[in-house]
Amino acid sequence: MSRIILGLDPGTATTGFGVVKEDQGSIALVDCGYITTPSTNSDSDRLLVIGRAVEKLLKTYRPDAVAVEKLFFAKNQTTAMAVSQSRGVLLASIARAQLPLLEYTPLQVKQRITGYGRADKRQIQQMVKALLKLDQVPQPDDAADALAVAICGAAEKPPNATIGI
Amino acid sequence: MSRIILGLDPGTATTGFGVVKEDQGSIALVDCGYITTPSTNSDSDRLLVIGRAVEKLLKTYRPDAVAVEKLFFAKNQTTAMAVSQSRGVLLASIARAQLPLLEYTPLQVKQRITGYGRADKRQIQQMVKALLKLDQVPQPDDAADALAVAICGAAEKPPNATIGI
Repeated sequence: MSRIILGLDPGTATTGFGVVKEDQGSIALVDCGYITTPSTNSDSDRLLVIGRAVEKLLKTYRPDAVAVEKLFFAKNQTTAMAVSQSRGVLLASIARAQLPLLEYTPLQVKQRITGYGRADKRQIQQMVKALLKLDQVPQPDDAADALAVAICGAAEKPPNATIGI
Repeated sequence: MSRIILGLDPGTATTGFGVVKEDQGSIALVDCGYITTPSTNSDSDRLLVIGRAVEKLLKTYRPDAVAVEKLFFAKNQTTAMAVSQSRGVLLASIARAQLPLLEYTPLQVKQRITGYGRADKRQIQQMVKALLKLDQVPQPDDAADALAVAICGAAEKPPNATIGI
């Protein structure tokens, strides 16, 4: 039985999304892209745009689970709080749709995708390209990051499945 | 023309709310209380509970504006991120209802309520009690804090109104 996993990389200006299909251990790209909100809008209007966009993604792709990057620690507290506001909206939408939520810190994504916690952004992107058998690295970076998170989610369950990562 | 202001003090476990009515410069208590979410629930379920509860408050009291405490800086980053997630849900709900949003940092609340930035929590609560002509300080603390934020919002507009704070 195949499963659809939506991966999300939350941000204020840009929230990346990636949709993958897992079928008997193989993973394929379904779609990827990003939600963008105009910087001229108020914080609350931007959060509403993000909420509506993710609800549309949930309706369009009807994922079996949603994987979201978890902010573990950020040097810039203002950024951390802004990204957390976006995460809050995403998480509430996922709960409203009664979907399983999978969370991964950036370190966990690195470890699971490359087996190496210190991998850089470029190495992650190359692995995403290779795992999804793509001709090139998905663009923009936020979409590639969201696909990396989605791949982590696709590898998570069912427990006995074997996925090549 | 009287105006209803909803004040919110966001948190994960407890989000305080306070509703005040401003009429020609005088402010009166309408209601106050708190939204609580069970710690046994997942983060996303708790955020959904908060979102639904605030939407119910917006429908019940039909405020003219919503005032929300703004986290400016927190010593504990984990707490700051958790509270920011709740704020994100609140802000998106306020934008969905197309209501004006007023934001105040804790320092601004202190300055506006007591005219003194270093006022302690107890002094703020005594001022809330006095301004709303109550017999005792509203309970719990989160409700009193939310009322303080609502009072700041009530004093904000219309620009020519005079309010006794």
